[in-house]
Amino acid sequence: MVEIVTPEADDALAAVATLLHDFNLEYDEPSPEPEELAVTLRTRIADGNATLLLARDESGGPVGVAALRLQPSLWSDALEAYLAELYVVPARRGQGFGRELLTAVLDTSRAAGADYVYVITSEDDRLAQRAYEAAGFRRNEGEGGPILWAYEQDL
Amino acid sequence: MVEIVTPEADDALAAVATLLHDFNLEYDEPSPEPEELAVTLRTRIADGNATLLLARDESGGPVGVAALRLQPSLWSDALEAYLAELYVVPARRGQGFGRELLTAVLDTSRAAGADYVYVITSEDDRLAQRAYEAAGFRRNEGEGGPILWAYEQDL
Repeated sequence: MVEIVTPEADDALAAVATLLHDFNLEYDEPSPEPEELAVTLRTRIADGNATLLLARDESGGPVGVAALRLQPSLWSDALEAYLAELYVVPARRGQGFGRELLTAVLDTSRAAGADYVYVITSEDDRLAQRAYEAAGFRRNEGEGGPILWAYEQDL
Repeated sequence: MVEIVTPEADDALAAVATLLHDFNLEYDEPSPEPEELAVTLRTRIADGNATLLLARDESGGPVGVAALRLQPSLWSDALEAYLAELYVVPARRGQGFGRELLTAVLDTSRAAGADYVYVITSEDDRLAQRAYEAAGFRRNEGEGGPILWAYEQDL
């Protein structure tokens, strides 16, 4: 079951903050503490800069999260969607939660009026790649076109 | 010379819209007409969804554009920057305008409070890659880490 987290949903917000904190720790990234992160995320949801999707298991326990940015396209009145983060706790991987989250990401993006969605991943994250490909994402520009690379830098 | 385009700068806005229109046509992408695009872009600048940088040559003619999105980070009060588009007209490539635009992208992002910038490109666009690498972008996650891939789909 996947829910869209509202700024008022304290428990869901705390669960998402804990998941994203654990995500950072798993990948050796610096992370704010969950309490602090929950405050930031509440603001981001409230001002439209983030849409957070929380996956729960059959007993209601939080098992995964997707963080989405829905922003006005530069080209038209449509939106475009950037999937900024996707995480499923290690013990529950390979059990369909990632797929469920990605389905919710696409449904939520379409319902909001997005005509395009993109995501960046690492070449060694095969699990994520399989999930993205199963959900219809392609890493080629056009059919069989060149691969898309992302470049980044800290400022 | 690179300028930040304001919503009131009709001539600069028209020049940017024409450049982005020509960009789409060069890469066989569908594009709104320049007049229509200028209206959309004015709104995007005004509501903070786009920062547009226009490069001019020594006689003031428009030769290139960068379209930047500066958005609140999910993790902190910093911003993150997404370089959505970068274009230099074919006749003026290899003459330093891309580098000048990228310097302005980094300066503008830092000045706005961004701590991270990212961009997506195609593996066959060697000119763009060289420009990004010269400007300090890396396509590896961390030093010598795995390559970053982008995935996308139309909705």
